[in-house]
Amino acid sequence: MNKTITIIAIAAILFCSCKENALNISTNQNSPEMNETIKTILNRKSVRKYTEQKIEKEKVDLLVRAAFAAPSGKNIRPWEIIVVDDTELLKKWGEQLHNAPMLKTAPLAIIIAGDTVKSSYWYLDCSAATQNVLLAAEALGLGAVWTASFPYNDRMEVICKDIPMPSTVRPLVVIPIGYPQDANKAPMDKYDESKIHRNSKW
Amino acid sequence: MNKTITIIAIAAILFCSCKENALNISTNQNSPEMNETIKTILNRKSVRKYTEQKIEKEKVDLLVRAAFAAPSGKNIRPWEIIVVDDTELLKKWGEQLHNAPMLKTAPLAIIIAGDTVKSSYWYLDCSAATQNVLLAAEALGLGAVWTASFPYNDRMEVICKDIPMPSTVRPLVVIPIGYPQDANKAPMDKYDESKIHRNSKW
Repeated sequence: MNKTITIIAIAAILFCSCKENALNISTNQNSPEMNETIKTILNRKSVRKYTEQKIEKEKVDLLVRAAFAAPSGKNIRPWEIIVVDDTELLKKWGEQLHNAPMLKTAPLAIIIAGDTVKSSYWYLDCSAATQNVLLAAEALGLGAVWTASFPYNDRMEVICKDIPMPSTVRPLVVIPIGYPQDANKAPMDKYDESKIHRNSKW
Repeated sequence: MNKTITIIAIAAILFCSCKENALNISTNQNSPEMNETIKTILNRKSVRKYTEQKIEKEKVDLLVRAAFAAPSGKNIRPWEIIVVDDTELLKKWGEQLHNAPMLKTAPLAIIIAGDTVKSSYWYLDCSAATQNVLLAAEALGLGAVWTASFPYNDRMEVICKDIPMPSTVRPLVVIPIGYPQDANKAPMDKYDESKIHRNSKW
């Protein structure tokens, strides 16, 4: 009988400790060390080498939704989102854009463009949207990198030759996206105390 | 004896099912519906009303670390991060900046500034850093909002009068941050299918 009681006690302890663990995992979203979003922000890195694996439609949809969730000045939302999975087009751009050769092997790119008439600071709003896409990619196990079109006229022209956007809309960025060849690539540690200032002290 | 075996079995089942649950919680980070980062990106909203609660040092540190984790063109990292918790200064700016009256009641603001000599597109890199801070705030249960300094000379001057940054460094944004008065404020749904384009179709 003593044995039975001991076993019941062990079972109870195991059960309670498991429940507590489960609770901690969810509560810990508010704890910095366990916060998945903070981890994603700190783990994001520029990924330029991709496997051949295609990206699931569901993930592409989330990347696009992430772009739309950015803030914009006066809520003008000046962005246009171009999803490119035509690998012939990506290969062509990869040859023509010296800053984006990785497009030759990327299964996907998302272009964030902005309406220069709707907003005079469209490139700021579109940068926030771009960062959302980069973080969403990291969060979904994908790799991505910001390749700048704006403010370079020659690079923007390469894109605009193939994407018939109105002349008032300019591409800020082409984001190649794919499953990373190196899933364990470490992020750079760019923390720099000399660049932190407090109140009126410099 | 049968009873003992039954109890051992129950204990084993409870233990295993708990372990499986714990595993699912972590594995589901790869599942879009359960992905905390995607949730944070989609839930971020502009928060302009704060409680009087001060923000813990540990959280301020994470907000700053998030800023540093942004990408930058050619890895130049043109940013400078100014942490302002001098509430007299915040109140003064709240009076002087017509676009940022919420500074009067914010316990904290983070300014992201950029070195215009180091980079000619510092404002893009600093926008990515700003978005990281906004998302980190959302993830930590805080509320924040992008109030633009750049490209407005009058607004930048208000800040530069009190923060003795070099003349080559310009403030992009002042981000007031605090615990939100309305912890249940819903994000705007800005998804817009008419702004999504596929390959060469417009």
